[in-house]
Amino acid sequence: MSAGGVDAPLGVFDSGLGGLTVVRALREILPDERIVYLGDTARVPYGTKGAATVIKYALACARHLVARDVKALVVACNTVSAVAPERLRVELDLPVLGVVEPGARAAVAASGTGRIGVLATAGTIASGAYSRAVAQVSTRAEVIGQAAPLLVPLAEEGWTDGDVPRLVVRRYIEPLAAARVDVVVLGCTHYPLLRGVIEEEARARIGPTVTVIDSARSVAADVMDFLASRGMRRRAPPTGAAVKLLVTDMPRTFRETAARFLGDSVGEVEQIDL
Amino acid sequence: MSAGGVDAPLGVFDSGLGGLTVVRALREILPDERIVYLGDTARVPYGTKGAATVIKYALACARHLVARDVKALVVACNTVSAVAPERLRVELDLPVLGVVEPGARAAVAASGTGRIGVLATAGTIASGAYSRAVAQVSTRAEVIGQAAPLLVPLAEEGWTDGDVPRLVVRRYIEPLAAARVDVVVLGCTHYPLLRGVIEEEARARIGPTVTVIDSARSVAADVMDFLASRGMRRRAPPTGAAVKLLVTDMPRTFRETAARFLGDSVGEVEQIDL
Repeated sequence: MSAGGVDAPLGVFDSGLGGLTVVRALREILPDERIVYLGDTARVPYGTKGAATVIKYALACARHLVARDVKALVVACNTVSAVAPERLRVELDLPVLGVVEPGARAAVAASGTGRIGVLATAGTIASGAYSRAVAQVSTRAEVIGQAAPLLVPLAEEGWTDGDVPRLVVRRYIEPLAAARVDVVVLGCTHYPLLRGVIEEEARARIGPTVTVIDSARSVAADVMDFLASRGMRRRAPPTGAAVKLLVTDMPRTFRETAARFLGDSVGEVEQIDL
Repeated sequence: MSAGGVDAPLGVFDSGLGGLTVVRALREILPDERIVYLGDTARVPYGTKGAATVIKYALACARHLVARDVKALVVACNTVSAVAPERLRVELDLPVLGVVEPGARAAVAASGTGRIGVLATAGTIASGAYSRAVAQVSTRAEVIGQAAPLLVPLAEEGWTDGDVPRLVVRRYIEPLAAARVDVVVLGCTHYPLLRGVIEEEARARIGPTVTVIDSARSVAADVMDFLASRGMRRRAPPTGAAVKLLVTDMPRTFRETAARFLGDSVGEVEQIDL
């Protein structure tokens, strides 16, 4: 398999609708690019599952996008980025960009004390991927990881404000506050859907100067740099819908969240079988 | 494919660990039976997914158990029982017992007013299966369904008491209280893991005489009747482990929950690929 040319779309995938936060960030800074997004909604969530299972699912998603002739693959899922990027790079003959490294770099840049909190799925935390990524850019920074498995179902169900998400977020933020972090990384692409509650709880429990890092923005900047360095940026607005959405199951919430997130650029949602 | 003989095990399956509540109920009233339990932990939850996806997963689970020569199949998952029992009966040449009908019968028997509340997954509620099952045994009873999608991740993560499950359960119980039900059916095999909180909230919001129906017990009684009527009950205690546990992914919580639920009868947990 080989990658498509400059005019080919970017392939982006995630377990469910969370990766739409990465698509939105890509649309903001790369409005000329076409995007094919695959949400594996038939098998969401990934983050509570073991590495072998996540790798199997990620390869199926990636192969489907490669068959659609994408020019690069953006893994808009921290769990996959944490356990599978090398497998994807080895098995697929095209560039693979993950979300962990850009988020880790942004966190190191934002931290004054070097104490970096990461909220992520159980799979991402268990992998140690954020600690390794931070160690590559700073010898003095330290990662305090907190698994936050309830946040994905809350985001998928649209329970993004009110008492329940607030209490759940508080329970996950408290250990980070006790560890005196000054940065909190949203280490799962679903979590920006809960950003309001997470920022409020982080300010209240950790302190008003805490920085919350949305890795969706960091990865979009990474993709822009990558495309520019390879001379692979499109230079004209796409005709028709800029974003093609694929799902493996059609949950009630997907279409509405996609429309709210991406506005007019959303075309039809197509259901595929992996 | 054909069913195993009297000495063959019962095959029981669910999306994750929820069906262990059915295994426990079966062990209590049918201690001589051997059981093979399959939890599709690689694809949990089913209840947020569409009917076609659920049917595909259910067929894969059922075929695996049939290949192990079970004498009957117990669908310990309300979502599958709601959307797939006829497909399973047609495709597999063996008896298939679901959880919806026994729960519906128990609810009708327990209700004085005929107003029956059902807490279940979005998939089960959307199917209308409980309304149909209740209509088959009573012309005057009415089902008020409430989708409760957050309860499965809470149970899978072991968040079964404290503020968060209490507030989540309260939000789902309130519409049932407003509809003046006198029975609440736990229409998902995960929910008995949250039984304490659900009973407390139901008593506080609906009234102290509300009846909470655990369909795990109802289905176990149904299985006993079925085996007795066919002369298929084993008449001697099983040698070795009575329960064989299979999972498609190995989540942290499965083994501990299984041990807590089933005690000494649990053998090794085997991971399989579907």
